[in-house]
Amino acid sequence: MNFASDNTGPVHPNVMAALNAANMGYALPYGADDATAQAVQDIRDVFEAPEAAVYLVSLGTAANSLILATLSQPWETVFCHTVAHIHEDECNAPEFYTGGTKLTLVPGDDAKMTAQSLRKSILAEETRGVHGPQRGPVSLTQATERGTIYSLAEIQEISATAKDFGLPVHMDGARFANALQTLGCSAAQMTWKSGVDAVTFGGTKNGLMAVEAVVFFDPKHAWEFELRRKRGAHLFSKHRFLAAQMQAYLAGDLWLDMAEKSNTACARLAQGLKQTPGVVLDFEPQANIIFAQWSRAAHQRLHAAGAKYYVMAGDHTTGPADELLPARLVTDWSASPEDVDRFLEILRG
Amino acid sequence: MNFASDNTGPVHPNVMAALNAANMGYALPYGADDATAQAVQDIRDVFEAPEAAVYLVSLGTAANSLILATLSQPWETVFCHTVAHIHEDECNAPEFYTGGTKLTLVPGDDAKMTAQSLRKSILAEETRGVHGPQRGPVSLTQATERGTIYSLAEIQEISATAKDFGLPVHMDGARFANALQTLGCSAAQMTWKSGVDAVTFGGTKNGLMAVEAVVFFDPKHAWEFELRRKRGAHLFSKHRFLAAQMQAYLAGDLWLDMAEKSNTACARLAQGLKQTPGVVLDFEPQANIIFAQWSRAAHQRLHAAGAKYYVMAGDHTTGPADELLPARLVTDWSASPEDVDRFLEILRG
Amino acid sequence: MNFASDNTGPVHPNVMAALNAANMGYALPYGADDATAQAVQDIRDVFEAPEAAVYLVSLGTAANSLILATLSQPWETVFCHTVAHIHEDECNAPEFYTGGTKLTLVPGDDAKMTAQSLRKSILAEETRGVHGPQRGPVSLTQATERGTIYSLAEIQEISATAKDFGLPVHMDGARFANALQTLGCSAAQMTWKSGVDAVTFGGTKNGLMAVEAVVFFDPKHAWEFELRRKRGAHLFSKHRFLAAQMQAYLAGDLWLDMAEKSNTACARLAQGLKQTPGVVLDFEPQANIIFAQWSRAAHQRLHAAGAKYYVMAGDHTTGPADELLPARLVTDWSASPEDVDRFLEILRG
Amino acid sequence: MNFASDNTGPVHPNVMAALNAANMGYALPYGADDATAQAVQDIRDVFEAPEAAVYLVSLGTAANSLILATLSQPWETVFCHTVAHIHEDECNAPEFYTGGTKLTLVPGDDAKMTAQSLRKSILAEETRGVHGPQRGPVSLTQATERGTIYSLAEIQEISATAKDFGLPVHMDGARFANALQTLGCSAAQMTWKSGVDAVTFGGTKNGLMAVEAVVFFDPKHAWEFELRRKRGAHLFSKHRFLAAQMQAYLAGDLWLDMAEKSNTACARLAQGLKQTPGVVLDFEPQANIIFAQWSRAAHQRLHAAGAKYYVMAGDHTTGPADELLPARLVTDWSASPEDVDRFLEILRG
Repeated sequence: MNFASDNTGPVHPNVMAALNAANMGYALPYGADDATAQAVQDIRDVFEAPEAAVYLVSLGTAANSLILATLSQPWETVFCHTVAHIHEDECNAPEFYTGGTKLTLVPGDDAKMTAQSLRKSILAEETRGVHGPQRGPVSLTQATERGTIYSLAEIQEISATAKDFGLPVHMDGARFANALQTLGCSAAQMTWKSGVDAVTFGGTKNGLMAVEAVVFFDPKHAWEFELRRKRGAHLFSKHRFLAAQMQAYLAGDLWLDMAEKSNTACARLAQGLKQTPGVVLDFEPQANIIFAQWSRAAHQRLHAAGAKYYVMAGDHTTGPADELLPARLVTDWSASPEDVDRFLEILRG
Repeated sequence: MNFASDNTGPVHPNVMAALNAANMGYALPYGADDATAQAVQDIRDVFEAPEAAVYLVSLGTAANSLILATLSQPWETVFCHTVAHIHEDECNAPEFYTGGTKLTLVPGDDAKMTAQSLRKSILAEETRGVHGPQRGPVSLTQATERGTIYSLAEIQEISATAKDFGLPVHMDGARFANALQTLGCSAAQMTWKSGVDAVTFGGTKNGLMAVEAVVFFDPKHAWEFELRRKRGAHLFSKHRFLAAQMQAYLAGDLWLDMAEKSNTACARLAQGLKQTPGVVLDFEPQANIIFAQWSRAAHQRLHAAGAKYYVMAGDHTTGPADELLPARLVTDWSASPEDVDRFLEILRG
Repeated sequence: MNFASDNTGPVHPNVMAALNAANMGYALPYGADDATAQAVQDIRDVFEAPEAAVYLVSLGTAANSLILATLSQPWETVFCHTVAHIHEDECNAPEFYTGGTKLTLVPGDDAKMTAQSLRKSILAEETRGVHGPQRGPVSLTQATERGTIYSLAEIQEISATAKDFGLPVHMDGARFANALQTLGCSAAQMTWKSGVDAVTFGGTKNGLMAVEAVVFFDPKHAWEFELRRKRGAHLFSKHRFLAAQMQAYLAGDLWLDMAEKSNTACARLAQGLKQTPGVVLDFEPQANIIFAQWSRAAHQRLHAAGAKYYVMAGDHTTGPADELLPARLVTDWSASPEDVDRFLEILRG
Repeated sequence: MNFASDNTGPVHPNVMAALNAANMGYALPYGADDATAQAVQDIRDVFEAPEAAVYLVSLGTAANSLILATLSQPWETVFCHTVAHIHEDECNAPEFYTGGTKLTLVPGDDAKMTAQSLRKSILAEETRGVHGPQRGPVSLTQATERGTIYSLAEIQEISATAKDFGLPVHMDGARFANALQTLGCSAAQMTWKSGVDAVTFGGTKNGLMAVEAVVFFDPKHAWEFELRRKRGAHLFSKHRFLAAQMQAYLAGDLWLDMAEKSNTACARLAQGLKQTPGVVLDFEPQANIIFAQWSRAAHQRLHAAGAKYYVMAGDHTTGPADELLPARLVTDWSASPEDVDRFLEILRG
C-alpha cells in the first residue's frame, strides 16, 4: 500500500531489460550513439513532429529549467500557476537557470490557470517601460500538481492568449502520459496542435529510472539548448543508457499502458473514497493523484497497517479522533487493485 | 580496439546486477532510502572519514561545479591548471554554478601545477583591494587530463601552499581510482591526510553507469551543498539507483580492481608504443591515458582496421604518409591484452 | 505645477554649492578621500550607530539590490509587499544581484504588510525541505509606494515576526526622510531600535542629484558589501562628489527641512482634494504621494494648463467627461503653496 | 604634483558650470529629458554615426560589463589582453553581468594583443563541440592600461581577424580621448571605420564627474541594452545631470582639449625622464600614462616633497638607496608644466 509518490515504485521490467541489453560493447558518448538517434526519432514520431529538437536529461527540474532559460530572458517573468512545481518545489532552479527571470503566479481553481486569469496577469506586466519585468513564457503543468487536467479547449485558449502577446508556451509534462491517457487524444493534439511550443516529456514518474525528454517543436532552439544543457552539467557521457530507457518506454506504447495502470488504480481508489462516509475529496481526480481528507482515527489505522502516503497538514499521531486531516495519494504503474482495496478497507475501519 | 574514452565502454556486470537487484518494491525518494545511507557510509569508510558530508550526483561536471560553488564566492578566482577539465571541457559550468567566479590558469609541466607556480599565481591576485578578483579555492585533477599523477609529496606541497593563504583545496577525481591504484596509497592519504578539503570521487569513467560522489571532509558544507544540488537540478528522485551503483563499486574493492585493469592495459600499450620505432610519447603515462604521436600511414592503418581513438590535430586521411600526428588513447576496465596487442601490431604495420 | 515625481525637480542649492566646493584640487579615489570618511561619520551620527557599515551609491535600485544580495542566499525568498518597488519597478535587479533569490509577495492594505500577513507568508515557506525556497530577508518600504507610512509599532511587530524566524529586516527608505518627518521620531527609532538590520537611506528623491546611502547596523557585512558594490560596478572613482552631496544633505538638518517642505505641500494638496467635490482619495496620504481619482474633464483642464502628473489608468484625452480616472501626485521640496493652490483651482474648474 | 591617477583631479569648470545650469526647473526622469536627447545626438555627430544606439552611465566598469553582456552569451569567452582592465580591475564584474562568460587572455607586447596572437587564441577555442567555451567578443583597450596605443592599422587587423570568425569587437575607451588625440584621426576612423562594433566612450578620467557613454553602431542592440542597464541598476533618474556633463564635454571640443593637455603634460614628463640618468622607461608613453623605474633614493625625495603617484612594487621607504623601483605616473587635464618640471627637478635630486 504505497501511495506516497510515483517516484517511490520500481522501474518497469521492460526498462530494466533494455538497460541490460544496452550494456554491450562500445558506444560513442554524449549522445552521439545510435540508440540516442533512434530514441529522438521515436519521440518525434510520437509527437508527429519530424523537425522537433529533442533531448534527454535525467531530471524534470532540469528539463523545466533549461527549457524556460531557453525561452526567456532574465528581465522577463514566466507566467505559471500559484502551485506550479517550478515555483513551489524546485528550490529556485528556474531562477538559477534563467539568470533571475521572475515567476508571476496566475490564480485559478483546481490548480489550473484560465485564459482569463492569464490575460489579466499578462496585462498587468510590461506596463512600466523598462522598470517592470517584461512578459515572458507561459508555463502550464499537465497533469497539474493537484491531479486535475487541462482539457484541449483550455490548453488552446491559454495558448491563444499567450500568442496574443507573442509569448511562447511551455508544458511541464512530468505526468504527461497520465494526462494524455485521460484525454484520450494524441500527443500532438495535446501539445503543438494546441499551441504548445516546448514540452517536458516526463518518464521518471511513469516507470523509468531517470529520464525526461525535452521537446522543442521549433528546432531553432536546438543549439542554444545543447549549450545550456552542457553548461548546466546535464549532458550524460554514457548517453546510451538514457536512450535505452526512452526506447523501451515508447516501444509498444508501454508508456501509455503504465499510465493507464496508474490512472485506473487512482480511479478505483477515488471511487472507493467517494463511497466512504466521512471522506472528502478536495479535487476531482483526473490522473493519478488524489487530495482527500478523513479522520485522524482512520489515518492512524492506515499508518498502523503500514500504508505509505503523505499527511499534508496536522499531526495524525495525536489529537481528536474525528478531526479531518488532509492526505495526498499517488498511484504508479505498479499499484494493484488489491492494494487499493486493502487501503480502502482499513480506512473504513 | 576502443581507446576513444573511458566513457565509451560497458558498465561492469556487478553494477548492472546491483541495479537489477535494487529494483524491488518501494523506496523513499531523494536520498532518504536505506541504500543511500549505506552508500554514504561505505564512502566514509573508504576515506576513513566518519564525519564527511557525502553526496551522489550523476555527472562529474556537476560534482566539480557544485563543490567549487560551495567553496568559493563569485568575486574570487579558482586556481587550476591551464588544461584543467573545469576550464577546458565544461562549457563554463563552473562559472555558471559559482555565479561568475574566475579561473586563474596555473602553468606547469605534465599537466600539473607545482607549489611554486601556484604560489606565484596566488601572489599575483588579491593585490588590488576590491578591484581585482579575490583568492579562492585551488583545484587539482588527479589523475590529470594528460594521464600523469601528482605524487603525495606534490599534493602535500600544493595543499600547504593553499593553506598558507587560507584557501581550500578541491580534487577533481574523475579518474581518482586510476591515480590511487598507481600510487598504492589509501584514499585518505591521497586526500585529507594530504590537505585536500573536498573531492569529486569519480565512478562513471571507471565502470559505473553515471555516478560521482561528492565528499566534503568538513561537514559544515553539508546543508549549503544540499540546497545547491537541488537548485542545480541534480537531486535524483529514484536515488536508490545511484546508491546501488556506488555500493557495487566499492564492494570487494571492485573500483580498485577495475582501475588496475585499465591501468595495466594502459601500461601494456605504453610499453608497446615505446618499443615501436617512430612513435613518440608526449607524457609518461601513469594512469589510463596516453598521448603519443605516430605517422599518418599508421593512423590510416589503424582506422582502416576499425580502431577507435582520437587524432588530436591534423587530418589523418590525407597528407604525407610519414608526418607525425598526435593521438590520445584511453583504456577502461574492459580493455583486453588482446585488443592492446592487436592495436600495436596494426600500428607497426 | 509638477507633481509627476520627486525625481523631476531640482537639486537643492546647498547641494549644488557643496559639489562646486568639492571640486578643488586632488582627492584620493574610490572612497578613500576625507569627505567620504566624514559623510560616513555623519550618517553614523544621524543613526546613533557608531559601528555601522555605511556606503554611498548613486541609485536606490543599486542600494536595495546590493543589500538584499548581501543578506540573502540565492535559494531563499525575500518577503516584501505586493507593490514593493523591488518587485514592481526594478526590472528584476534584485533577482540579478542575488543570483536568483525569489520574492514572496505579502499582502496587506494601504501597501503595507502586517505582522500577521508576514507570519502567514513565512510559515508557508521552508516547509518542503530542500524542495521549496528557503526563508530569506524581510523588506519593507518606508514610506510605501502608495504614500502611507508604517508606524513604529508596526515596524516593531514586523521585525519581531522576522526575528522569530531568524530573518534579517531591510528597509527600503527611498523616501526615508518623508516618513521620518511624519513620524517625528529619530532615525534610530525608525530603524535599529525597531529591529531593522539594514537601510537604503534615500537622498535622490529628496533634493540630491544622485546619492543613496547603504547602512548595515552590524558591520560584519562590510567587506562582502564592498566586494559586491565593486563587482556590481557601483564604486565611484571620484567618490568625493557623492560624499559632498551627502554632507550637504545632513548639514543643519537640510534633509528634514526638505522632507517637511514636500510633506507640507502634499498635505495642502490632499486637504484641498478632500474639500473638492467629486474627488476620491485612494489612500490617506502620510508622506509626499497622493493617489486620487477625479473626472476626465478635470484631467483635461489640468493637462491643458500644463500640470505634470501621471494618469494611472485609462485615456484622459477621450471618453465620457464625468468618468473618474486615477492619478498619482508626488511633491518634492521645491513644490510651492502657489503651485498647489493653482492646481486645485484648475481641478475644480 | 599629483600623478596618482586621472580620477583624482578636479572636474573641468565648464562641466561644473553645465551642471549648475542644468539645475533649473523640472525635467522628465530616466533619460526622457531634452538634454539627454541632445547629448545622444552630439555623440552620434562626434562618431558620424546617425543610427548609433547611445547611452550614458556613470562608471566605466558598468559600461564595459553591460556592453559585453549584450554582445556575448554566457557559454562564450571574451578575448582580451592579459592586463585588460576588464580582467584585472573589475572584481569579476564582466563575469557577473554576462552570467559567467569566460575571459581568454591574449598575450602581446606593450599591453596590446596582435592580430596573430588573437587568431591563435580564437583558433584554440570552439574546437571541442559543446564541451569547451564558445568564441565570443573581442575587447581591446584604447589607450591601453600601460599607456600605449593601437594604431589604426592594428585595430583594423584585429577587427578583421575577429570578423573572420564572426565575432564582434568592443573598444574599452576609458582613455578614448587621449588615444584619439595622439592618433590625430576622427572618432569614426578609430572605431566603426576600423571595424569596432561598440565603444565605452570614457569621460570620467578626462575631466567629467562621472559619465561614460555606451555606443553601439548597430542599433539592433538598443532595447536589450536598455533592459540590461535598468536591471543592472545603472539607469539614473535625474538623468539630465549625466547629459549636461556630456554636452559640456563635447561642446567646442573640450574633450579633445583636455586630452591634449594631459597628453602634453605626459610627453613633457616622459621627455624629462628620458633625459634623467638612472631612469628607465618600461614602455614608450603614447597617451597620459608612464611606467618607469628609478632609485629608491629618488622615490624618497619625491614622497618627502609631497608628490603623489603609485610605486608599483617594493617598499620605497626602506632598502638600498640605489635599487630601482617601478612607478606609474598618470597626468590629467589639470597637470601643469610647472608641476611636471618640479617633479623632474626633485627626482634628479
